[in-house]
Amino acid sequence: MPAPDVLIVGSIALDTIKTPFGKVKDALGGSAVYAAYAASFFCKPAIMGVVGKDFPKKHLKMLEARGIDTSAVEVSKGKTFRWEGFYDFDLNIAHTKKTELGVFKHFKPEVPETLRNTGFVFLGNISPKLQLSVLNQMEKKPELAVSDTMNYWICKDRKGVLEVVKKADMGLMNDGEARMLFRTGSLVKAAREILKLDSEFAVIKKGEHGCVLFTKDTHFAAPGYPLENVLDPTGAGDSFAGAFMGYLAKTRSLTEPNLRKAVVYGSTVASFAAEGFSLGNLRNKTFGDIESRYLQFRKIVEF
Amino acid sequence: MPAPDVLIVGSIALDTIKTPFGKVKDALGGSAVYAAYAASFFCKPAIMGVVGKDFPKKHLKMLEARGIDTSAVEVSKGKTFRWEGFYDFDLNIAHTKKTELGVFKHFKPEVPETLRNTGFVFLGNISPKLQLSVLNQMEKKPELAVSDTMNYWICKDRKGVLEVVKKADMGLMNDGEARMLFRTGSLVKAAREILKLDSEFAVIKKGEHGCVLFTKDTHFAAPGYPLENVLDPTGAGDSFAGAFMGYLAKTRSLTEPNLRKAVVYGSTVASFAAEGFSLGNLRNKTFGDIESRYLQFRKIVEF
Repeated sequence: MPAPDVLIVGSIALDTIKTPFGKVKDALGGSAVYAAYAASFFCKPAIMGVVGKDFPKKHLKMLEARGIDTSAVEVSKGKTFRWEGFYDFDLNIAHTKKTELGVFKHFKPEVPETLRNTGFVFLGNISPKLQLSVLNQMEKKPELAVSDTMNYWICKDRKGVLEVVKKADMGLMNDGEARMLFRTGSLVKAAREILKLDSEFAVIKKGEHGCVLFTKDTHFAAPGYPLENVLDPTGAGDSFAGAFMGYLAKTRSLTEPNLRKAVVYGSTVASFAAEGFSLGNLRNKTFGDIESRYLQFRKIVEF
Repeated sequence: MPAPDVLIVGSIALDTIKTPFGKVKDALGGSAVYAAYAASFFCKPAIMGVVGKDFPKKHLKMLEARGIDTSAVEVSKGKTFRWEGFYDFDLNIAHTKKTELGVFKHFKPEVPETLRNTGFVFLGNISPKLQLSVLNQMEKKPELAVSDTMNYWICKDRKGVLEVVKKADMGLMNDGEARMLFRTGSLVKAAREILKLDSEFAVIKKGEHGCVLFTKDTHFAAPGYPLENVLDPTGAGDSFAGAFMGYLAKTRSLTEPNLRKAVVYGSTVASFAAEGFSLGNLRNKTFGDIESRYLQFRKIVEF
């Protein structure tokens, strides 16, 4: 079996979600799940996280059938992490009804030996302490380590979040988080702060408004793909991150022009994710679908 | 004197504004003022509206010195329209403290004979009834009539707003207004509704997130120019509209590729407007400054 190209750590969840367009109960979700599935369009990911004994086996089987290495998924006594939330008319804002940490409360990630040399590492949304612990277990510095976070952790452990951004090569977060973390209204200023923390690149996701990438000297803006029917935006940001990492891990090039392409692939896969509940719509897509929407993106921005 | 290329109708105001970065009292503002000034970078605009006897003469002189035709500015007994507002940390949201209609309460726009054949007409944010009255006074159908509006009018006279959009060739509004007017969360759906109202084009402004242009078959997205220091976003949307119209009136081409360019020129001038209070920063800019930021835009979106 070939070694995985990218190690993806984060939550594995059962989501109960209501939007104006439907609802699901205990559907497969979580930052690591969306990111790993999205990355699997491009390369071989390994997913790392914890689930409870109640986690349906079919989900792991489905991920394995996609070629995703699940050897680092710990099955613990207790209940799987659950998130319950809803979206109103403005799908940009997720309202949390309930969060049950379950087995995540006592999770101590241990990176299996076989994965300690993985070149690309994505630290999805979990506690900064766990993110750091994973990074510290890597045998050598990864080619690229990217960290994501969430407002919850910025409130609870701002120092920890800043430490993770500093330790990773690229800070990736959404616009609200960037504003909150660096206490500024300006995304450009927030991006400069990320870069000051030893990050070579800063990526700020803006939901339906697309995504911006900053380096010290350059700036790239990708619009959101114009969607007529967003059913559920949950996991779109994680799908962005996974596809972004997957494309970079596949091409193994970190030049600025290649990062731009990775951003557009990320936006493409994220747009598919938002067109369905859970992984529903992603699971219907082929690499050909992704390629054709990617090319559409170019037509959308040309002038 | 050459006849004006574009007729711009809307409010002429004295604004009192506070943002986290400063404040101004009774500063020159209003949708028609921003739009006319922005258009004057490209062609000869005429501005139409009403002011009170208290309106400082220096403002009209300044506009005239820019080559703007002010013959359709009515000076009425009473007080000039005043708006007082503030912005917090999130500069995307304007909070109104006070609106004093003043002479606008009884304004009945009469298009001077010399302007009734103007080929390009921009109906800036005033009551839909006044917008319609101006359009009806034109001697022949303008080459391009574009209408803007504001949430205030959508609440107060939704039918009127829809009638103006139907009568104009292009509906232009911001994202919040589009969502409100067509009662949908999806900007794509809102744009389709604009197109259904006999509009050939729909333009939706998204503040710092840029702007999207829709035709029946195509879609164009321009990002916002990444600004490190937004001082006051007031008038940025009107500056967008004015520059957009000015560029089209100058080039007299309504092909889709030319509309894309007009959108980017609009975004460019809007970005300069937001970097200062009132017209402050726009007044420091040359056409060369605009050209160079326009070219930057292309570098920002290429992949």
